[in-house]
Amino acid sequence: MQWVKGLGLGLGAAALLALGIILGHFAIPQNSPSISATQDLDLEILETVMGQLDASRIRENLRELSREPHLASSSRDEALVQLLLQRWTDPASGLDSAEAFEYEVLLSFPSQEQPNSVDVVGSAGDVLYSCRRSEENLTGEQGGPDVVPPYAAYAPPGTPQGLLVYANQGREEDFTELQTQGITLEGTIALTRYGGIGRGAKAVNAAKYGVAGVLVYTDPGDINDGLSLPNETFPNSWYLPPSGVERGSYYEYFGDPLTPYLPANPSSFRLDLTNVSGFPPIPTQPIGFQDAKVLLCQVNVSVHNHLQLRNSSNVLGIIRGAVEPDRYVLYGNHRDSWVHGAVDPSSGTAVLLELSRILGTLLKKGTWRPRRSIMFASWGAEEFGLIGSTEFTEEFFSKLQERTVAYLNVDISVFANATLRVQGTPPVQSVIFSAAKEIRSPGPGDLSIYDNWIRYFNRSSPVYGLVPSLGSLGAGSDYAPFIHFLGISSMDIAYTYDRSKTSARIYPTYHTAFDTFDYVDKFVDPGFSSHQAVARTAGSVILRLSDSLFLPLNVSDYSDTLRSFLQAAQQDLGALLEQHSISLEPLVTAVEKFEAAAAALGRYMSTLQKGSPDPLQVRMLNDQLMLLERTFLNPRAFPEERYYSHVLWAPRTGSTATFPGLANACSRAGDTSPGSEAWAEVQRQLSIVVVALEGAAATLRPVADL
Amino acid sequence: MQWVKGLGLGLGAAALLALGIILGHFAIPQNSPSISATQDLDLEILETVMGQLDASRIRENLRELSREPHLASSSRDEALVQLLLQRWTDPASGLDSAEAFEYEVLLSFPSQEQPNSVDVVGSAGDVLYSCRRSEENLTGEQGGPDVVPPYAAYAPPGTPQGLLVYANQGREEDFTELQTQGITLEGTIALTRYGGIGRGAKAVNAAKYGVAGVLVYTDPGDINDGLSLPNETFPNSWYLPPSGVERGSYYEYFGDPLTPYLPANPSSFRLDLTNVSGFPPIPTQPIGFQDAKVLLCQVNVSVHNHLQLRNSSNVLGIIRGAVEPDRYVLYGNHRDSWVHGAVDPSSGTAVLLELSRILGTLLKKGTWRPRRSIMFASWGAEEFGLIGSTEFTEEFFSKLQERTVAYLNVDISVFANATLRVQGTPPVQSVIFSAAKEIRSPGPGDLSIYDNWIRYFNRSSPVYGLVPSLGSLGAGSDYAPFIHFLGISSMDIAYTYDRSKTSARIYPTYHTAFDTFDYVDKFVDPGFSSHQAVARTAGSVILRLSDSLFLPLNVSDYSDTLRSFLQAAQQDLGALLEQHSISLEPLVTAVEKFEAAAAALGRYMSTLQKGSPDPLQVRMLNDQLMLLERTFLNPRAFPEERYYSHVLWAPRTGSTATFPGLANACSRAGDTSPGSEAWAEVQRQLSIVVVALEGAAATLRPVADL
Repeated sequence: MQWVKGLGLGLGAAALLALGIILGHFAIPQNSPSISATQDLDLEILETVMGQLDASRIRENLRELSREPHLASSSRDEALVQLLLQRWTDPASGLDSAEAFEYEVLLSFPSQEQPNSVDVVGSAGDVLYSCRRSEENLTGEQGGPDVVPPYAAYAPPGTPQGLLVYANQGREEDFTELQTQGITLEGTIALTRYGGIGRGAKAVNAAKYGVAGVLVYTDPGDINDGLSLPNETFPNSWYLPPSGVERGSYYEYFGDPLTPYLPANPSSFRLDLTNVSGFPPIPTQPIGFQDAKVLLCQVNVSVHNHLQLRNSSNVLGIIRGAVEPDRYVLYGNHRDSWVHGAVDPSSGTAVLLELSRILGTLLKKGTWRPRRSIMFASWGAEEFGLIGSTEFTEEFFSKLQERTVAYLNVDISVFANATLRVQGTPPVQSVIFSAAKEIRSPGPGDLSIYDNWIRYFNRSSPVYGLVPSLGSLGAGSDYAPFIHFLGISSMDIAYTYDRSKTSARIYPTYHTAFDTFDYVDKFVDPGFSSHQAVARTAGSVILRLSDSLFLPLNVSDYSDTLRSFLQAAQQDLGALLEQHSISLEPLVTAVEKFEAAAAALGRYMSTLQKGSPDPLQVRMLNDQLMLLERTFLNPRAFPEERYYSHVLWAPRTGSTATFPGLANACSRAGDTSPGSEAWAEVQRQLSIVVVALEGAAATLRPVADL
Repeated sequence: MQWVKGLGLGLGAAALLALGIILGHFAIPQNSPSISATQDLDLEILETVMGQLDASRIRENLRELSREPHLASSSRDEALVQLLLQRWTDPASGLDSAEAFEYEVLLSFPSQEQPNSVDVVGSAGDVLYSCRRSEENLTGEQGGPDVVPPYAAYAPPGTPQGLLVYANQGREEDFTELQTQGITLEGTIALTRYGGIGRGAKAVNAAKYGVAGVLVYTDPGDINDGLSLPNETFPNSWYLPPSGVERGSYYEYFGDPLTPYLPANPSSFRLDLTNVSGFPPIPTQPIGFQDAKVLLCQVNVSVHNHLQLRNSSNVLGIIRGAVEPDRYVLYGNHRDSWVHGAVDPSSGTAVLLELSRILGTLLKKGTWRPRRSIMFASWGAEEFGLIGSTEFTEEFFSKLQERTVAYLNVDISVFANATLRVQGTPPVQSVIFSAAKEIRSPGPGDLSIYDNWIRYFNRSSPVYGLVPSLGSLGAGSDYAPFIHFLGISSMDIAYTYDRSKTSARIYPTYHTAFDTFDYVDKFVDPGFSSHQAVARTAGSVILRLSDSLFLPLNVSDYSDTLRSFLQAAQQDLGALLEQHSISLEPLVTAVEKFEAAAAALGRYMSTLQKGSPDPLQVRMLNDQLMLLERTFLNPRAFPEERYYSHVLWAPRTGSTATFPGLANACSRAGDTSPGSEAWAEVQRQLSIVVVALEGAAATLRPVADL
């Protein structure tokens, strides 16, 4: 390398000092292949990786990862931090570097001395029935001190007692319905079932009606396709046993509750507990359906949860890019589980570790090094509210926003064996499709993952015709801070259900002590071929993102989304807006400008590809592709929505599938009088979207134009 | 160029269509020199430009620009838009492209039908004396319909009458002083003098004490070194005549008052006037000292200002970069004046036009094209509150933030002939020094601009020893939105006073009808050698920023600032913070990390420079240098401070010269009880700075590290 010559000229101390720095910047181990600045994706390497991804190794990874419960910040969770560090620093199959980053975050646990309890009591306060305080030990893995009893994380302690009222899913409309039926809610205990809305929202709604405590159970109709008898459920099938209880975080936001927008380093400012918002307002406790069905009377709920500052680590493993080390391809999943967490999250980590092993081995052998840097991440404390990943984005906000190409999340890698399921922003559609077309789908037949996928989820695209349909990204896993807070193109992939075969809200043992290795091995993915399929898809996507000369992010695929958002606005809101003399014309113009600029950039790119572009031309174009997603961020658009800055993907309460700010403002404005503050907000939100789209179009135009 | 070959292969329609795009992206006119990707600054070109910058042409530019009054949005202002477009599209000396961008913004004007008036009235309401309604027509240029009468822009209409009270500079302490003297302020007219605080703040303070109206005059002691007689003042000297009145905007913020954070396009959402904040709360009128000295009695103030939506344009002229067209070097000044505005702003525009002529000529001849794109800007409506530049940053927020290397502002280019004066952020110090060392200073002797400068303004740097000292950037001109809102390294340069020769608050005819071409030609800069010196400095800075292979932004110069901020915090606030058990240790660590990372990056850069780095290595390093300033932005740090997001340069009210958020929070917390919300805010602000510095250090570290 040229700089080595430079050093050879006998420079002084500075140059010698600099050596360390340069190694830091561009060190390519001697055994690295020499890679030209215009090298493109190597299809042989891709084939090699696809071929080497080994189902039995994924199975062994899963066995080890899910051997013991590893609740966030538990000793087993810490042991897995060491396991990851050891794997990623292995001399034969490790990465260039690996490091654990520890944060001090506020978690919530049940008391060991005073177990949470739910009892039926008589008028004299005599206990007539007690709900289980733990799940039935059916496989020998549901007992022992490391199995955290069922509880609602962040629910406040308290011992409310009152008449039981069945409140369905605990939605606003469920309580108003009860009210209209003349049922007194003040001082009652509301029995609700999982589903419909977020966990914490059930308690928030209940408290508004004076409810004193909330119970949340899992209904066999929602999770077991109606089956509920012991012989119909695990360990005899994949269905949830009667004693199974879904644990979960009942915190409304994500990230460490004490340090919003700040990394939870020991020295960081922490909110006073009295100023923390987002916790359930009243005691809440989850129970199993076995208990739920017998509760029809006076109930006493004792919740003794307590909050605790605990250390939780992210583990980051890095493969340094050979040509553009300052461009990051991120691939992550959380490490912590509620109990053994075989499906959630270990099925994802098992896949991630197999891919890092194979890439690490190619790296150590010197046969391959990516063009861009690849970062593998194992996030901590996700189950408590995406805490590890959120703190990471807060700590490295600037450099991640400037340099990250895309984020791939694989949390639960296999829910079921039917088909691939992808959530993501439009620019990632193309790279997912390219990968899915080249990989055989597991199971009978000889379909590609793509051809199988399109049979289950599809849509008709004005541009491509019938294609598999991607879902949009909510806040269900660690991709949330990357897309909503940082504006980084993100995706989440998994293998999932055939909906004609089950109506389960989610896989039945979700967040219970029955989510174990045997459960996966016997019922979810015997043979692990679906795990292997996800590993291949993830591997192919990562390699395409890290090694392609031109970034495989098709920004013009945003045009589809913008068109459909625009049409929905015109059809559902157009008339109403007109009544308030608000015109959608500027939005129409902005969408047209985006479409034109994206299409022109696409033509420019294909012409460049046909020539032999110089590295700077490619870099400049790739910067346009990488940074497009950033242009949709506006930290001042939704001040009350913590972290949500993406004007296209913020949460939408309004029913119209259009720009969220516009939809929400319209549903709030409703029939308030013309000229109200609420209608002014509608106009403001409309302008915010227009300016974002105009700005996005501007970044796609020829780079020296305004 | 390679892509031309590509096209040669007889591609189809797509490729032909693409031609336009490619031209847009990388079109280099045939007559352009071929420039290699590693070409560095061409010293011959630099010499040529320095030699060709012509004082007499600057003088002719100024004569034309200041021939007529050109108040924002006036017909003459529009005519100057055309003049700029014509200059920048001239076949022999124009740029690659030029365009006017029009906004619809809220301005404030005095009524033509009902002139504002200030009268002394007797007890019977009989008028005893009337202040002048316009300045004395001493040179024939102070009369006529285009000379806007003196007024306080954005002051509300009203006709308050009351006893006159002299309130010095109208600061908070001035009014409390009057109160303690037992003087009734309720219903009075406060006579204040310019200076001490912002214009609008005088009325804001006065209103708090029940004052009904405010007069603001220019004191000869502040502006004329005490001289006040007609024969001592213009046209007999550069001093302000007795009838001279300083106009100005009394709006508290900047940008269009109706569209904060949104470009003022016709379709943009506009605040209802009732929701606009930042206007003076009571009628206010500026007057001259000739009138001020006779007002000692009952005064009637009639203000008939009205608000109006007007069109105002920015003009942008672009020279496309040959190698990195997506990197922008911005050079701008405003175009609008209060009256003829020979000094403010035409002295700056005259310089800008001369530089654009010379660079345009080299461009058209095909002898030169910059490595990066250069954008020349003529901003509209600056005098009303930096409106044009602010709307520009709002409209092109994303692409400017991603691609702008630095912003150079030259508003008033010459206040006086003594020395160069520079305000800027630390990274620009090095490029300014390099330029100033190579240019001869005007006037007697053979000093460089640098050696002359250091005699007037200097400081002792721990790194460099005695160096000229740069001032920091407030909000005095169009650089404000670039540094505070976008986080772009910015600078403002001018030639200015010898403070031993004058104590004038600013050049005497500032914002009056006496700021004319003859004023400049006779008294400010006869021979225009200072204008030429500023033109050469600006030209050298622009060429160094646009053509240097490695960006001449020395990020390690931020270490000086951080050290001094830290020391000030330790010395002035350390004890107080300790009392509230707030430790500065995390701040110490963060500053040390920044220093280490910046120094290491410097060593890496010098090693790269000694070798022959490839273009991508240079680009990656330059991205670190360019984006460093961005890492100091936090849009959530000061929610109540509109546009101010830079955690190092936000306005500081606290007296300690340290991190503004920390200083302000401490002065607010004062002696509130420990554990108060105010002290929590101190801790929050401390964490915000620590996280920003840690993030800045992280972006300077080797690019594949976290």
